Amino acid sequence: MRIPSHIGIIPDGNRRWATNQGYTKDKGYEHGLDPGIRAYRSCRDAGVKEVTFYGFTTDNTRRPASQKEAFIKACVEATRMLVEEGAHVLVVGNTSTPLFPKELMDYTKRHKGKEGEIRANILVNYGWYWDLTNIAGKEAVNKNNIHGAIQSSDVSRLDLIIRWGGRRRLSGFLPVQSIYADFFVLDEYWPDFTEEHVRRAIEWYNTQDITLGG
Amino acid sequence: MRIPSHIGIIPDGNRRWATNQGYTKDKGYEHGLDPGIRAYRSCRDAGVKEVTFYGFTTDNTRRPASQKEAFIKACVEATRMLVEEGAHVLVVGNTSTPLFPKELMDYTKRHKGKEGEIRANILVNYGWYWDLTNIAGKEAVNKNNIHGAIQSSDVSRLDLIIRWGGRRRLSGFLPVQSIYADFFVLDEYWPDFTEEHVRRAIEWYNTQDITLGG
Repeated sequence: MRIPSHIGIIPDGNRRWATNQGYTKDKGYEHGLDPGIRAYRSCRDAGVKEVTFYGFTTDNTRRPASQKEAFIKACVEATRMLVEEGAHVLVVGNTSTPLFPKELMDYTKRHKGKEGEIRANILVNYGWYWDLTNIAGKEAVNKNNIHGAIQSSDVSRLDLIIRWGGRRRLSGFLPVQSIYADFFVLDEYWPDFTEEHVRRAIEWYNTQDITLGG
Repeated sequence: MRIPSHIGIIPDGNRRWATNQGYTKDKGYEHGLDPGIRAYRSCRDAGVKEVTFYGFTTDNTRRPASQKEAFIKACVEATRMLVEEGAHVLVVGNTSTPLFPKELMDYTKRHKGKEGEIRANILVNYGWYWDLTNIAGKEAVNKNNIHGAIQSSDVSRLDLIIRWGGRRRLSGFLPVQSIYADFFVLDEYWPDFTEEHVRRAIEWYNTQDITLGG
């Protein structure tokens, strides 16, 4: 079976899930933590080498304060859980604005995890334009070195992106790494994650051809 | 009804269609011309303001010569048909390599079409890295001006991307303009286009929310 090397996870639907449960929207995020670690383990056990989680973006910071606090806290906790698991953790995002949590500063260079574990990237206060504007000022950027010129250059090309919550869009998720990725959308909200979702996505991926644009 | 201002068209499946019909693969492209003009008219009549067609990419130029000749010829013919229809045509692509057809040079600045017609962009010898590397060398690029810094700056943000041929990937299609776009995939091959496909995509789009990443 053809296993994707790198899977992107867009864990959407936390707020809709919370509303359906009768909670306030900000309560959705804490219910996304357990799914996160389970998704990491599912990928690792399937033979995936790298997983990237879409934490929060600079676009998301227009949301109400209670939600912002909740998703920032969830990202900090998710990072802690992944480090504890032994993953090779990297936090990628704009550290120069106040919304970037200081606790995560240590992880903006890749943390060496345990043997047998895999790379886990978390996008925290990430912005697609922040990522791409890094190209400005560089000289002689071409097809072969453009990936190295962006802010998220330590995140490899994505093979498969799985989005929960039914929306069929990238919402600014790593535009350069997503170029050739296959895109699998689940209607289930992220807090309703099950291991079967990852299994289904990988099985679907196996039925797709690889062309890399050719 | 909420109508997308700008629709992207990824007309995939020409070669698979040709093979199914017992033709050689290169014969698929000419059967994609009539669908192209019909797709343009469907969008225009629905109230869409801009349509972008994925012609061919610099990645595609690794294909056999007979296929290359066929898709280049189809792009030239598609441009001619859209101009004749009265569309405000713009050809976007790398004009500095031999595969860019000289006949289309006049359309690399927007051609003024007829009243009541809409903008039609055709990507010809386009490359996502060619598009983005234009940012290099620019100064002070930020969220507000990054769109203006790329090669395809005259192509506006996409609201809806429709892909024929069943593959759920962008394959390098306008990474900056695709950031917030909703992505609708049809299993039918492009030569089997019907107006109902566009209608279905626009109806689906109407059921999606707009967040622009918020």
